[in-house]
Parts: sequence; C-alpha cells; structure tokens
Amino acid sequence: MINVGIIGAAGYSGVELIKLLLNHDEVIITKLFGNSSAGSLIEETHPSLRGMISLKVEQFKPKALGEVDLLFVAMPSGQSMQVIKEAVNANVKVIDIGGDFRLKDAAIYTKYYNHEHTEKELLSRSIYGLSEWNKEAISNAKLVANPGCFPTSILLALIPLLKENLIESKNIGITSYSGTSGAGKSVTANMIFSEVNENVRAYKVGNHQHIPEIKQYLEHFSSFETDFSFVPHLLPVTRGIYTTIHTLLKNDVTEAKIINTFKHNYSSSPFVRFIGTEIPEMKNVVNTNFCDIGFKFYENNALVLFSTIDNLVKGAAGQAIQNMNIMFGFQQTEGLLKCSKM
Amino acid sequence: MINVGIIGAAGYSGVELIKLLLNHDEVIITKLFGNSSAGSLIEETHPSLRGMISLKVEQFKPKALGEVDLLFVAMPSGQSMQVIKEAVNANVKVIDIGGDFRLKDAAIYTKYYNHEHTEKELLSRSIYGLSEWNKEAISNAKLVANPGCFPTSILLALIPLLKENLIESKNIGITSYSGTSGAGKSVTANMIFSEVNENVRAYKVGNHQHIPEIKQYLEHFSSFETDFSFVPHLLPVTRGIYTTIHTLLKNDVTEAKIINTFKHNYSSSPFVRFIGTEIPEMKNVVNTNFCDIGFKFYENNALVLFSTIDNLVKGAAGQAIQNMNIMFGFQQTEGLLKCSKM
Amino acid sequence: MINVGIIGAAGYSGVELIKLLLNHDEVIITKLFGNSSAGSLIEETHPSLRGMISLKVEQFKPKALGEVDLLFVAMPSGQSMQVIKEAVNANVKVIDIGGDFRLKDAAIYTKYYNHEHTEKELLSRSIYGLSEWNKEAISNAKLVANPGCFPTSILLALIPLLKENLIESKNIGITSYSGTSGAGKSVTANMIFSEVNENVRAYKVGNHQHIPEIKQYLEHFSSFETDFSFVPHLLPVTRGIYTTIHTLLKNDVTEAKIINTFKHNYSSSPFVRFIGTEIPEMKNVVNTNFCDIGFKFYENNALVLFSTIDNLVKGAAGQAIQNMNIMFGFQQTEGLLKCSKM
Amino acid sequence: MINVGIIGAAGYSGVELIKLLLNHDEVIITKLFGNSSAGSLIEETHPSLRGMISLKVEQFKPKALGEVDLLFVAMPSGQSMQVIKEAVNANVKVIDIGGDFRLKDAAIYTKYYNHEHTEKELLSRSIYGLSEWNKEAISNAKLVANPGCFPTSILLALIPLLKENLIESKNIGITSYSGTSGAGKSVTANMIFSEVNENVRAYKVGNHQHIPEIKQYLEHFSSFETDFSFVPHLLPVTRGIYTTIHTLLKNDVTEAKIINTFKHNYSSSPFVRFIGTEIPEMKNVVNTNFCDIGFKFYENNALVLFSTIDNLVKGAAGQAIQNMNIMFGFQQTEGLLKCSKM
Repeated sequence: MINVGIIGAAGYSGVELIKLLLNHDEVIITKLFGNSSAGSLIEETHPSLRGMISLKVEQFKPKALGEVDLLFVAMPSGQSMQVIKEAVNANVKVIDIGGDFRLKDAAIYTKYYNHEHTEKELLSRSIYGLSEWNKEAISNAKLVANPGCFPTSILLALIPLLKENLIESKNIGITSYSGTSGAGKSVTANMIFSEVNENVRAYKVGNHQHIPEIKQYLEHFSSFETDFSFVPHLLPVTRGIYTTIHTLLKNDVTEAKIINTFKHNYSSSPFVRFIGTEIPEMKNVVNTNFCDIGFKFYENNALVLFSTIDNLVKGAAGQAIQNMNIMFGFQQTEGLLKCSKM
Repeated sequence: MINVGIIGAAGYSGVELIKLLLNHDEVIITKLFGNSSAGSLIEETHPSLRGMISLKVEQFKPKALGEVDLLFVAMPSGQSMQVIKEAVNANVKVIDIGGDFRLKDAAIYTKYYNHEHTEKELLSRSIYGLSEWNKEAISNAKLVANPGCFPTSILLALIPLLKENLIESKNIGITSYSGTSGAGKSVTANMIFSEVNENVRAYKVGNHQHIPEIKQYLEHFSSFETDFSFVPHLLPVTRGIYTTIHTLLKNDVTEAKIINTFKHNYSSSPFVRFIGTEIPEMKNVVNTNFCDIGFKFYENNALVLFSTIDNLVKGAAGQAIQNMNIMFGFQQTEGLLKCSKM
Repeated sequence: MINVGIIGAAGYSGVELIKLLLNHDEVIITKLFGNSSAGSLIEETHPSLRGMISLKVEQFKPKALGEVDLLFVAMPSGQSMQVIKEAVNANVKVIDIGGDFRLKDAAIYTKYYNHEHTEKELLSRSIYGLSEWNKEAISNAKLVANPGCFPTSILLALIPLLKENLIESKNIGITSYSGTSGAGKSVTANMIFSEVNENVRAYKVGNHQHIPEIKQYLEHFSSFETDFSFVPHLLPVTRGIYTTIHTLLKNDVTEAKIINTFKHNYSSSPFVRFIGTEIPEMKNVVNTNFCDIGFKFYENNALVLFSTIDNLVKGAAGQAIQNMNIMFGFQQTEGLLKCSKM
Repeated sequence: MINVGIIGAAGYSGVELIKLLLNHDEVIITKLFGNSSAGSLIEETHPSLRGMISLKVEQFKPKALGEVDLLFVAMPSGQSMQVIKEAVNANVKVIDIGGDFRLKDAAIYTKYYNHEHTEKELLSRSIYGLSEWNKEAISNAKLVANPGCFPTSILLALIPLLKENLIESKNIGITSYSGTSGAGKSVTANMIFSEVNENVRAYKVGNHQHIPEIKQYLEHFSSFETDFSFVPHLLPVTRGIYTTIHTLLKNDVTEAKIINTFKHNYSSSPFVRFIGTEIPEMKNVVNTNFCDIGFKFYENNALVLFSTIDNLVKGAAGQAIQNMNIMFGFQQTEGLLKCSKM
C-alpha cells in the first residue's frame, strides 16, 4: 500500500486520476494540492466526486508531502518545474503528466513552450513514460515524464514499423483528431460549445508542442531518423483521439510482415489491442487505458495506420497509473483493467 | 463467489452489465445467452470487450444454466417471459431488466405493451427492484423486476414527499429528457444520428409504458393516490436522464421540511445524493450508479424537483447489480462504487 | 429600400442579422458598429461572411448613423440604453434585441438585471415586439423591444388559451431547454464544450431575467393573472429552444376547443405552425423563423403544450426583421420565408 | 423561368434541393417524384416544409414530366439509370446527384458499385458537374453527373497544384471526415445515434466508391497521373466534410507560388474561398455552397492542404443548382448566394 498525492487535482486529468485511483487496491490518496481550489473540499469543487472521497485541497509545500510516496503532477506547462524539484529533493517519486520533462533539448523546449526551462539538470534525469517501450527505465525512475496524448497514439503505432526498418516515406503524413478535454479546462473564446459543436478545425499546424516530442521518441525508440508532418484537429466530442497515418513501406514488405511485427512487439502489452486489418473505433477505447491499432496496406506499398486512445486515460491519467504500477512493482493492469475471472 | 449468466448480452444493458460485473469481486460471469449472436464470441460482436473477457454466446436452454446462481435478463419486452419461467423453475434467481414483470395488472400491461402477459402467476410473485425502497422484499426475492429508467429517476424524487403527505397538486407535471441508449440498439429511421443530433422531440406522449409503472409504485410506496402527466423527450446525448418535476406543496410546508424529508429518507442510501437547493448536472452521474436530486421551492408553494441518473447504470444494469448485492448479502456498493480508503 | 445599421454586429445575433438581411430585397446594410471589433472588417472577424459582405466596423457615434433608417441593437444588457437614446433622438428607428426595454417596471428590471435603468422615459414608450400579438403598435413604433427567446416560445403557446380563459391551473409548470447560442459568445468556465457536451443542467432557477417578461406579457396580452414556475435548461445543441408546458384546463374545455382557439388566433400568422396533436421537433424550426406548436390533452383536463423555435431566428434576429417588416410596411415574410411559386 | 422536377425528393439531398430552389427566382418546382412517398404531400412526410410548399409526390412516368425543363435525380445508385434514360429521351435535361454517371469505365463502376451499368451509351455522353472546372461542357450538357461530396472537397484543393505540376509525391495521403448526412437516410445499425455520437471511425478503407472518381477527375482536369490513398471517416456532426491532404511538392516550389496558383485558378469562382495560410473551419461553410481552402507549407517541401464544404450543399444539392445555373444561363450564384447590395 502506498500513499499518493496529486497536485493540480482540479483539472480534467487530476479528477480522472482520482477516479481511477479509487479503484486501485494498493493506493491511498493522501494529499491533494492546488492553487485556486486550495482550502476547499475536492468534492465541493467537483460534485461528481461526492460520496466517493472527501479531502481538503492544500497549498503545496514540500513538508506538506508528509508520508507521500508518489506525487502526480497535473499542472500546466511551466508551473510545475519548481514543485517537481522540491518533491524529488524530498525523496518523493514524481510522475509529471504535463509536458515539462519530455523534451531533452532545452532550446527546443523553449521554442515550442515559449518559456525557459529552469531545471535542466533534472530534465537530463527524467524518464519518458511510454509504458510499453520504456518499462525497464520506468521501473527505476525517480521522475517520469508521462507522454503527451497525441504522441502516445502515434508512437505506439509507428515505433514497431520504424524499428524494424520497414518504412520508406520521406514524409509520413499524420492526421490526428482530438476531443476537447485534451485542451483541459482552459476557458477561451474558441473552446465554448457554440464554437466547437458541429465544427472541425485543424489547429497549431506546424507549431504544436507535441511535434518535437513525437520526433524525439520516434527516433529514440526506433534508432532511425524520421520525417513527418503532424496535423492535430479539434473534434466535437469530449474524450478520445483518433490518429490516421499515411506512409509508404519498403518494396518487400508484406501484409503478413506487418501483422507479425505488431504481434511480436505487443505480445505482452495488455493495453495495446492490435486488431490487424480491422478498423478501430474511438468509442471502444473511451474510458479505458487501451490503445487500439489497425491498418490498411495497399498494393502500391502505401500503408495507412489507425490508432485510437482516450486522451485522459491512456493519453494522461491512465498511463500515469500504468507507470506507477511499473515503478512500484504492482501488476501493470492494477486499477486500470479487470479481466474475467475463471 | 456466485456464478451469473446474462441473456441478451449483446444489447446496451447487457454489455454494461458485463463491464460492471468484471469489477465485482464476488461474481464470475459463467454464461452468456443470446439469439442472433449465439455461436460467436462476445468480444467479437463487441470489440470494446477484447482483452477483458472471452466467452461464447449460447442459445438459451434451461439445462445450459448449469451452475448459474443468478440470471440477468436483458431482453425486449414479451420475449423473456418463457425464459424467466424456465429459469425460476430451475431454481435460478432472476433479475429482469426488461419491463415484463413490473406491472401487477395484466390488463394494464397489455394496454401499454401491446401483447398478452403469459405468466400471470409468476407476475404476482415478482418483486419490484427499486433498491432504496424495497430492500427487505428484494433480499428474499426469487424474481426481481428491475425498474425502468424514467421511473427510477421519478420515484426516487417523489416518493419521500408523497409518503409524508406534503404534496397538494391535482396534477404533477413531469418532464424527462433521455439519452438515446434508453432506446437500446433498435434501428429505426428516427434514431439515426442525422435525425437525433441537434434536435429535441417529445415522444410517446400519453402512452409511454412507464406511465402505469410510475403510477403503480408512487402509490405503492407512498400509500397516496397521485395524478400526474409524464412527458419523455429524446435528447442528443448517449447516456443520461434528466427529470424536472413541477408540483405544488401543501400550505405549511417549509424548505427545511423538504430538506429533512429527503435527508431522513436517504440517510443510508449510498447511491442517492440529495444536494438540497443545488442544481444537479447530468454529467455528474453518467457512468455511475448515483441518482442526484435537488429542488427549488417558491414562495407560492410551487416546488420544482430535479433528478438525474445514468439510464444504463442506475436506470438498468447498475441497479440490477445493486439488487443482486441485496439478494446475495453482498455490500450494496460492491462492484458499483469504490470510496476513498482511509 | 431602407438603410439599416447594426450595433453589436460581432455577436451571434448580430451575425445572424447580417446573414438574414443579405436575403432581404428592401434593405441595404449601411453601417456596422462595435467596440472590440471597431476598425476591423466584419468578414475578418467572421470568416463565414467572406464573399458575402465587406464592411468596416465603426465605433458608434450618433452622427455616424448618417442615412440609417433603422438601427438594430444587439448589445448586452445595460450597455445599450445610452446608444438607443441617442439613436431615437437622432430620429432613427430602433429595434433592441437585448432585454433593456421589455420590462415596464424599472424596479423589477433592476431586480433581475442587477443594475439601474437609466432611460425610464424611453422605457415607457417602447413597444414589445411580439409580432403576432402586437402588430398594430409595432407598425407605429419608434423603439421596439424585441422579445426574449424563452418568452417568445412560451407566450405564443399560452396567450391564446389564457386570453380565452380556458386555463384553470394555480401553477403552470414551464420547462424549457435551450441551445448554447442563447448564452451568446460569453466565455465562461461552464460554457466550454467539455462542460456542456453530453450534459444537461437547469440554470438560473427562480431568478432568470425572462421570468418577469413572461409574466408581464402573458398578463398584458391575455388580460388574466397568471402563476407559473419557469425552469430553463441548457442543452448540448447550438441552436433551438424546446418548451414543454404542463397545465390544467377548465372542466368544460374539449380538444376541439383547443384546436379552434389556436387556429383562430393564428390564421393569419405565417410563422406560427400549429400542428394540433402532432409533436413538434426542434430540427424542423432550426434556421427558420417558424414557431411550431402542438399539444396533448388528457382525460383529467391536464394539458401539455409543446412549442419550439430557433433562438437566434424567431427568438432574436428573425423576429427583429419580422418587426422591421411591420414597421416599414414590407411583407411580413420578406427576407425570412420564400414560399413555392405557382 | 424554368420548371423543374425532383425525383427522390424524400432524401436529405432532395429536401435540401427543395429548400434551396424555393430561394431561386428563376425556378418553379413543378413536380416531385418518389416511390415510398408517392401519393402523399411532401410537407406531410417532411414537416419542416410546412408553410413553404404543398405538392403531391407522384410515381415517376416519363409522361408525368409534363412541362419540366430539368429533372434533378436524387436516387440511390443503380435505381436511377432507367429514369434518367427516359427523361433524356423525353428531351428533359437531367442533373444526377447520385453516382451512376460519373465513372466513364463501366468495369470500374461495377467493381465499386457492385452492379452492372445498364446505360453505357448514355454514360459516354454524361458531363461531370465540377462547376469550377467544367463550366463550358456543363453549359451545353443534356446530362450532368453531379460530383460526389468527398471528390468535390478533394478535387478543388488538388487540381490547381497538379495541373501546374507542382506535386512530387509518389503517394498523396488524403484524410476526410464527413458528417452523417453523407450517408443519406439509410437506416443501419452502425448509423444510430448511440453508435455515432462521441465516436470516430474510418470506413470503406480502400474500397470507397469515390476513390475511382477522385482518380479519374484528378487526372482528367490536371493531365497528370496521380497516386494517393484516400481514407474517409465518420464524424459525429450532421453536415460538413473536412479534408486534410498530406503531400510533397517539387523542390523549387515556394509559398508564393502556391498562393498565386490558387488565386489565379479561382479568381472568378465565387464559391471557392482560398484563404491562404489560414486554417479553414467547417462551420464557416455549413449551410452554404462555399468551399474554403487553406494550406501549410513546411521547409522540407511537405504541404498540407485543408478543404471544407457542406456535403449537402456544395457536395450535392448546392452544386447541382450551380450547374443548373450554368446550363440555363442564369447567374452562377442565383439561389445560392446573396451578397451585400451597394
């Protein structure tokens, strides 16, 4: 049994974390930290939690961490570096759901996040929490940088093919559609219901902060250089990401080879459901930690990959818990997936 | 540990039951029965279940029940009577999520369901599964008639006030809005996305089959006669019911009296969250077994009650599991609600 | 041919006005006024207008009105009184789509709008623009107070029955559901997509500013006192209002009487489609100036009325144009409805 | 003034045609034909039309065409060939909104539409109605094959660049998202609201009937061969298509060259709004005949194109009227677009 704390409990990822952790048999939520919500009870600011938990939100201070073994950080980029340093220094393990410890190059960080990185030494020690591809490193990590939602859907689909050197494209075309909860609770004119409903729009084309994250980890886990264009779109649904990837394979690649590559790489990954030439549906993964992957292979070596996740679960809070399970030696599925008893 | 079977596993309530039961520590899903899906694996017809359960759907026969202790019946009205009789005769407890065993008067049943009731003797012995108001009877029941989704939201809000004789109205005005999953998987021209999206319509006005169910149990649990008009509407969301009730209270009723009445009646009901003069939101109960109830009391004795549930959980599969818990002596919340550990 | 100006062109009602007026053969849009958008081209702030109109938004000054015959005012409550006085003084006719000139009692205005009314003299001269019931007065008006969206849907359904003294209820129960565009472009935490989608909530229960407007004009046009409770709800659609009204009729009222009452009162109203005992659907009126009205009459004298409009058309910009047509002697349907040529 | 008839008036495209044609000053809707709706009044089967048109739907016979100058055909594929032949033989001009006269190769037609083409001679004489690229031929046509919705969004974006030989890609990656009205009123299990809402899925991957249409006309209008993979997705909105195209340009192409190419090609096309490096939004074109096109050009010569239309207007009924205008010498925008009077 471990004690966990959450900072940024009032955002969508924070509330999702609380709900998922209540189902986890090895965890006690001991501390909730926040700024604007400090002093109030979490079930008052989030009435959906009434009858499930009653806990006062505190202002963060290192000594308030008390017995906490692990701190989940669900804060906007730039606000969490100081907190994370203090927690790590207090010997508390940290999983950062935000984007501050993913990019290893601080200059690229500044370019895409528009502010300086103030904890470069810590940055060099953070471990990228793509559970399926970095389990060993995660199991020993003090600070895990939980992956972004778009990168999770893209990396899980592309790494196997890249790693086995099956891809020919000079430019992989990646189109992703995301539900609105990916934008968090930010209150901006273009996120109100009347502007999103019955609408689609691409956004941050060419400058989304997930672009360098995708590039860094595609290349890290595959050991090959890549070139791609990634275009995120906003979708009138609350949860879910659907990614469609156009690429070209090398001449000798067969459909069987594709299938074997995925099966081989994900044979012991309970949350990746490779469904071959079936087409994934977003609703099958919403509210779960699954990533469903399918593909279509054309005669001219064109390949289309489909990958879908829940941005708040596998794309945030769920993968964070999966990483916690790896860090603390729990079953990887604990709190995230119950299977049929026999 | 008990063995349960589900007949009608391929509908929305059936799949919801499976997902909820996988989280239940005292239950093994042993048998799935169906017609059109018989012979196939449930995870093939419902890809969302892949990686969670793998079980072949069988054609129902009494002897196929085997070790089953409890059979959940999630079939359309009129198709289940024979099955239920056979299961009861085989000494298997039954919870019927459909509408066939709720109305005690077979003539009224025929008027609203448009076919004869063929199991009148069994009808006389069925127990209405409104968990909060019929616990004693449910705990000894062989056959539980699980309440309809609209009646659940309405009865929980009105019974306390009626029972304590606080209501004056000659005609209670009940407006309910439901998500589309309440209609099940029925494929009709007016349920396709283009006809429901960005639309609202009232339906079955004056002849909805839940009207006599509401009347029968309002009067049964309160011991007072009632007069009401109930109007269901279709809402462009998948899950959730929102009920708004206009009524007049007797002259001497105060706001404090209303609050005390609800608090007193639901003090030991973990799934009813009475929130006083706050206004419920549907999203706070979606995917849960909660019913959130609030009210507004006017100077002229007018009272508006608000009640909201998830039609597939508290309005169907969740309340069915709550009833199972009562029948088998499990914790009422088991499989439905995990609260914060201390 | 008349010249019109619009102030508050950047809001939803303003843009709707522009689009509708482009279809009007007797109108030239000469002037657009705004605050935050002043100085920019309207088609830049509203790309949907590109290729249809190109006009610079100006800061309002009375002398900037120039040749304008009629000014539409689509500003938030409290900001428009000064502007309207100046326009009226400049001998420009005004239609105020906002709520500042509807309530005749300035004290009630202050109670519901939370600020003082600074133009009480002008208030006493404003004409309520419920086109179907106030045509004579509108035709001579200098200042028309265009009705609120909820009141429009409610008044059109209730006035005929009240006026003919058919209603018995001590408390009429009115439940309305509105799309989000009714809230305008206000950017608040509870209006972002993630908070509205797949959700329903009642709001401003007991203190909505339309309550006194409904009461005042129900009584004004029917000459009877009324008592009602009105509850608005937010619906996850962009456009449309659906109103369901529970009431009791007097003992001797028949279904035929109800039908005759509506037919008689709306025989020369092209925008009210009374459909008898059919049930209206919101999608049939969206993007039109129609109000569809239906009803269900019960044996016990209970009556349920249904009324549906597009909140931005019949509930705002469309009715404003209908009123303009009445004021300037155009066909009432001009710019709003084209019927089949024969 | 011309007389037009519509066959298949009860479908979404048919009703859209009626509504648009009511706004057209040069057209009288004389005849409506249908099968299941024959004998009933169109405003009874489509209550949204009440108060706008009243016309009996007839069973089609050539002699019933009477004075009709132009017949719009909005029937499912395979059902219209006989009708169209009879109309053409009766010297009535025809615009087929369905897919039967688009593909010039009858073998390819059979492969994608799964039945034989029975009117090959007529097929050889049909004119493809992509208004912006085929105006001359359309103006003399007897039979116009109105383009598919996806092809319209794709062809308008790609033809200019292909024609000027700016594209390098061996495989253009085309991802399109469509609202549900593109599927018409077909009532299938996977089109009910509960299955589409809060969901995304790709469909007909590799075998959509629009694939050969896109290929044929990309090559016809550009005179270059192309290779692409096209993936349609279903979106939880009623109307609208959003297309995102990934491709590579030749080495020497500049952003200015791209802009000039589009401006030059669409300088006299009122319905194509090229917005340069701005990103289109679907809601800006919904309910209009516009196609909005934007792009993002990357340093590595990668180009992403965005194109969005309303599938029922520019993708069906609107473009059909645009083609009618061209055929009969009316203003191209008549009935489709009113611009600001000066």
